[in-house]
Amino acid sequence: MGAKLIEFYFDFASPFGYFAANQIDAFEKDYGCSVVWKPFLVGAAFKVTGGKPLTEWPLKAEYSRHDMERMRRYLGLPWQFPANFPVLTVGAARGVYWLEETKGEDTAKRFARDAYAAYFGRGQDISDAAVLGDLAEGVGVDRDAFAAALKEDAIKQRLKDETDGAIERGVFGSPFFFIDGEPFWGQDRLWMMREWIERGGW
Amino acid sequence: MGAKLIEFYFDFASPFGYFAANQIDAFEKDYGCSVVWKPFLVGAAFKVTGGKPLTEWPLKAEYSRHDMERMRRYLGLPWQFPANFPVLTVGAARGVYWLEETKGEDTAKRFARDAYAAYFGRGQDISDAAVLGDLAEGVGVDRDAFAAALKEDAIKQRLKDETDGAIERGVFGSPFFFIDGEPFWGQDRLWMMREWIERGGW
Repeated sequence: MGAKLIEFYFDFASPFGYFAANQIDAFEKDYGCSVVWKPFLVGAAFKVTGGKPLTEWPLKAEYSRHDMERMRRYLGLPWQFPANFPVLTVGAARGVYWLEETKGEDTAKRFARDAYAAYFGRGQDISDAAVLGDLAEGVGVDRDAFAAALKEDAIKQRLKDETDGAIERGVFGSPFFFIDGEPFWGQDRLWMMREWIERGGW
Repeated sequence: MGAKLIEFYFDFASPFGYFAANQIDAFEKDYGCSVVWKPFLVGAAFKVTGGKPLTEWPLKAEYSRHDMERMRRYLGLPWQFPANFPVLTVGAARGVYWLEETKGEDTAKRFARDAYAAYFGRGQDISDAAVLGDLAEGVGVDRDAFAAALKEDAIKQRLKDETDGAIERGVFGSPFFFIDGEPFWGQDRLWMMREWIERGGW
């Protein structure tokens, strides 16, 4: 069985994306997988499916809050449900792609992890320019250069293309994964992804 | 840690309910839990939440079909996706409660397992009176007596009460479980239910 490619689609406003982001690195360590982080705008997928955030469905909303709290305790993660939810994630998502293109994948991933930690771990507003600037500085990038980069046409187009591409591949929620093309929806399926890799599918 | 009570809510038209029905007995064997089977009408919950079957959402529908097929292979279960989907499950659900009241819990569970096997394992139409009659005979009950029982006011009311009660407790999908009151949605969470029981919660 060769090394597998995992494509990890997520929206920064997705609590279960946050949980997934804190578990996906283990697939590199445990199985030697390559994990590519692909932020996208789940709202665009919701327009196609008629979906909406878990917290906006009657009954489901209450359960979801309880479930998120239980899951974060299970994972032992910092947790501060953000006042601004769901947040506009365009800036953070563009930032990941711009960092990937100009500073490399490791810096992009570090920024993505930090942005999730800021949003769900500390409840910060990651649509705020000052917060994004701090996150950029945290990975060694000048905040003004970063702010300017997020307004470039090329990076706007990149996020649009990634989002369109995700929807074309059938991605309708966050997180969503492909293991060498095999789709898995939800951090609930990380156990199944492990089985899939260990057995080489079934 | 004392023996736990698991309440297992499901709709017979739910594929993931079928998968759960084939895994829940293990909780009796492994942990000495009591499992109470509680069919309800998920359509009534969908009216409250605005939900609908997985197979009726754009994008999600395609994934769901793929995922069901993958899950049933994983579990090694018979599988014949029914032509009549989603089926009217009022009769089968009333049948479970009537059997429970008149023949005892074991017979009711046997009927429920058989009804799921007929519907998702062989693709039979379990809203059909002849199919329900065969299922009744399979657990040693006269088919005419069974058919008559399903039309009794008391059993109609029982299913209505169970469905209303489920919604009042926040049940919005199938399968849905309570372990001594702690809610878990989806057969995706069976792993978490095991952890919950093993650790005594967290």
